[in-house]
Amino acid sequence: MVSHGKARKDASNPWKFAILRAVSSLFLQVCRGQSVVRPPVWMMRQAGRYLPEYRELRSRYDFLTLCKTPELAAEVTLQPIRRFRMDAAILFADILLPLEAMGAELRFVKGDGPCFPDPIRCREDLGRLHRPEVEATLGYVFKALREVRRELDEATPVLGFAGTPWTLAAYLVEGGISKHHAHLLSWSYRDEAGLRELLDRIADVSIEYLQGQIDAGAQALQLFDTWGGLLDAERWQRLARPSVLRILEGIGDQVPVIFYLRGGAHLLPVLGELPVTGLSVDWRQPLDEVRRIVGPKMVLQGNLDPAALLGTPEEIRRQTHDLLRRGRSSADGDVGFQGHIVNLGHGILPMTPLKNAGAFIEAVQHADEIFT
Amino acid sequence: MVSHGKARKDASNPWKFAILRAVSSLFLQVCRGQSVVRPPVWMMRQAGRYLPEYRELRSRYDFLTLCKTPELAAEVTLQPIRRFRMDAAILFADILLPLEAMGAELRFVKGDGPCFPDPIRCREDLGRLHRPEVEATLGYVFKALREVRRELDEATPVLGFAGTPWTLAAYLVEGGISKHHAHLLSWSYRDEAGLRELLDRIADVSIEYLQGQIDAGAQALQLFDTWGGLLDAERWQRLARPSVLRILEGIGDQVPVIFYLRGGAHLLPVLGELPVTGLSVDWRQPLDEVRRIVGPKMVLQGNLDPAALLGTPEEIRRQTHDLLRRGRSSADGDVGFQGHIVNLGHGILPMTPLKNAGAFIEAVQHADEIFT
Repeated sequence: MVSHGKARKDASNPWKFAILRAVSSLFLQVCRGQSVVRPPVWMMRQAGRYLPEYRELRSRYDFLTLCKTPELAAEVTLQPIRRFRMDAAILFADILLPLEAMGAELRFVKGDGPCFPDPIRCREDLGRLHRPEVEATLGYVFKALREVRRELDEATPVLGFAGTPWTLAAYLVEGGISKHHAHLLSWSYRDEAGLRELLDRIADVSIEYLQGQIDAGAQALQLFDTWGGLLDAERWQRLARPSVLRILEGIGDQVPVIFYLRGGAHLLPVLGELPVTGLSVDWRQPLDEVRRIVGPKMVLQGNLDPAALLGTPEEIRRQTHDLLRRGRSSADGDVGFQGHIVNLGHGILPMTPLKNAGAFIEAVQHADEIFT
Repeated sequence: MVSHGKARKDASNPWKFAILRAVSSLFLQVCRGQSVVRPPVWMMRQAGRYLPEYRELRSRYDFLTLCKTPELAAEVTLQPIRRFRMDAAILFADILLPLEAMGAELRFVKGDGPCFPDPIRCREDLGRLHRPEVEATLGYVFKALREVRRELDEATPVLGFAGTPWTLAAYLVEGGISKHHAHLLSWSYRDEAGLRELLDRIADVSIEYLQGQIDAGAQALQLFDTWGGLLDAERWQRLARPSVLRILEGIGDQVPVIFYLRGGAHLLPVLGELPVTGLSVDWRQPLDEVRRIVGPKMVLQGNLDPAALLGTPEEIRRQTHDLLRRGRSSADGDVGFQGHIVNLGHGILPMTPLKNAGAFIEAVQHADEIFT
């Protein structure tokens, strides 16, 4: 654990981080507010089912085995980098692993996704969770990260990640994927203090988990708030934000942090105030519009519609160029690219053709030719 | 079929409709722009599983039998009115029935919801759909509506409804409920013209279907665009809106039309331009904020979080009063209530306690005591 509680940015030097291992990385340069010849690009879920080499491995090992075997998790993390040379790798893992470490039985059921057979649904259920010894229970994640870091060159940072406590609770309370999140929301209306106790406990474990990732070589972190968009702005600030701030204070200014929220158009003014380096947004709003709402300080990450990668390569190139323009127009000055990390608005879809993923990545890799 | 194509509103008399059977109805008064002593209230899915009398019927008949047997559908429609005296009844039916009439096999599978075993996924598949004889295939809906209309007094209008073509396509193309809507979105990027052909065909059937509902006594209509929020504003305007406008032109100015969209905070500026009487919004944005975005002309319907009805009656009353204030402050002048139909932001949840549904309805029914 390290020092906490300092403001993440100050006005004179908003992009300073204690640890920045690679200065030649486009991704880290953008996180530091520097201008780059082209924006960096990676894809959420880039280590995944659209890759034949992933499907081959997955046919031999179940999902949790892949996550928990460091050499396999490292291999899966590196597969997309070898094929497409993205500008960042993101560790292959699942956001729900820390909940398992806290004592919640976790299964992955084919077709149904994650399942918690004994969900936590009220204050009394909290007794079934404990504070884990993070190295002992999640050390496989740190080992995989070290392995990945050894394999990557300086130009390609590796990202760690965690789900936000609210989003983890969305699965833990519902027992898996849910349509209406009635148990979670019901708890929030019945006993807000009890639910916030759960969120704080998850936050405390997340701090140690993310610190372990930083210590193992993660050069930036992404926080996924997949289900924050369920809440209106006032309730998001009251319910979901405190545990996010707790995590941000806990990990301090060591590495850039990017915050992802899906379906949060109504939350943008509030998210723009978060003390993070960047905001990763879904595909529902054009990036220049997002920029107008959140202001000039934050890095914006995103936001091609993942389904656009199911169209033709020509159309993908056209849309990627449009995205680059919107990301570029959002930055100060006309020289180079600033403040934009290109990504999808959500994870790449499993049925995405390889040539289409390639068309997207390459369109960004050649952005400097388009815009000069 | 009747005359089409006229502009729905003109500036001098924005609230004129050819058919307005009951002037004493709060719901219809608000639709006509009149001031009322208290706002009308009803609940999406008010005829449904939270009611023991519904569950009793449902234990004896499957879902489609309930929909297709006019006396049963009418009975289910009337159940919540008898218990709570809402200010509008809405016909018990399913948005997917017109697709079945077009030749798509439709099943309801316990736990999985609706299922189309042979989804329509490309232009070539369109040959499997046909233009149905609406009276012959959906006449049971019209019979149920007539039955309901006979049973209700003048103060309680009955609403007809349909899904928007985009939302119906979301089910028909995916084959049921979907997480990513990859087939639908993929089609939209591969062959937009083909998908729009499907949407137009659905729109044409919807026009006849809604006209049949009006002829059978529906005094207002609601269009449900549950999945429109998947699209950004530009794509919603290009893909989803044309078939909505086609329907609105087709049914003309006979009755008020309310447009519901879930998860559409990013679409509000565009929805505010729709030629409809009212906009029904989900719970993610406070109603006074929605009003600021869409302007003063439209009736706003909504928007208590359905999950709020899982809290305590005291808290429900408090939140309903807050909602009434936000809806009220959104109207012109300080006398009476105007421009607000109280509802939930989405369908009432099956596990909602009866006393909580009652607390919500009653809080609105006594709004005049609170605000005088």
